[in-house]
Amino acid sequence: MRKVSFADMNCSIAQALEIIGEWWTLLIVRDCFLGIRRFDDFVERLGISRNVLTDRLDKLVAADVIERRPYDEGRLRYDYVLTPKGRALWPVITTLREWGDEWITGEGNEPILIEHRSCGNVTHTRLVCDCCGEPLVARDVRVVDGPGSR
Amino acid sequence: MRKVSFADMNCSIAQALEIIGEWWTLLIVRDCFLGIRRFDDFVERLGISRNVLTDRLDKLVAADVIERRPYDEGRLRYDYVLTPKGRALWPVITTLREWGDEWITGEGNEPILIEHRSCGNVTHTRLVCDCCGEPLVARDVRVVDGPGSR
Repeated sequence: MRKVSFADMNCSIAQALEIIGEWWTLLIVRDCFLGIRRFDDFVERLGISRNVLTDRLDKLVAADVIERRPYDEGRLRYDYVLTPKGRALWPVITTLREWGDEWITGEGNEPILIEHRSCGNVTHTRLVCDCCGEPLVARDVRVVDGPGSR
Repeated sequence: MRKVSFADMNCSIAQALEIIGEWWTLLIVRDCFLGIRRFDDFVERLGISRNVLTDRLDKLVAADVIERRPYDEGRLRYDYVLTPKGRALWPVITTLREWGDEWITGEGNEPILIEHRSCGNVTHTRLVCDCCGEPLVARDVRVVDGPGSR
């Protein structure tokens, strides 16, 4: 399994995966987006063992992706809620879901869909250039050294 | 380590992670997008063991994310190249990189950037609604049952 850390690689993808690339982690984040907050609810929905869930939640809290919010101080019970850093994972979760919809489950078999509140339509997302607004795919871009390049 | 498969979960995210959620896999896909094609080049760039790389490439080939293209039939040597299903992962890779840029490495430390060939600018991506074209974030959408909901 994990014998190597990606944390020292000079790559934002590697460093992101160091935090969210472990087995189970993105499904926990997915459930947070669906409004799940309680430890026992994660256990029940995911079918995950309590010790693995504890490990993953601890790491997500340490990485500031999820925060613990006490709801019963006396019994030390917590809600687990996405931080701004965690909510910023929505594009990752969404593009992953749409890839699965298109290439695995297939059109017409989507388990969930999303409705855009403001325009009222069931929608899919599109990735566009934030300069010109045109759709972006891999062949449209050229990779260049960034300021943190070594 | 992996005791549970996500393949039977009725969720496109889980099914996507069953294919690309293993440790190392998305870094292999990243390198494919950067033009790496040869087994030994993956080994050298990633610092991955040959047997783990073989395992991951075999799974990616079985899942039709990568295809083997013989470049030396006599010696059974292959290039590893993304299929259309693999190239469709670009939004996942890109949103993951941009999340890492923003929340881990930080602005001004990006190891790489992308330039949009047609508009000529160094760009970031934005996720928009494909119906109305407006930017989409989690709070803008409502999750609804899809046709494959159980």
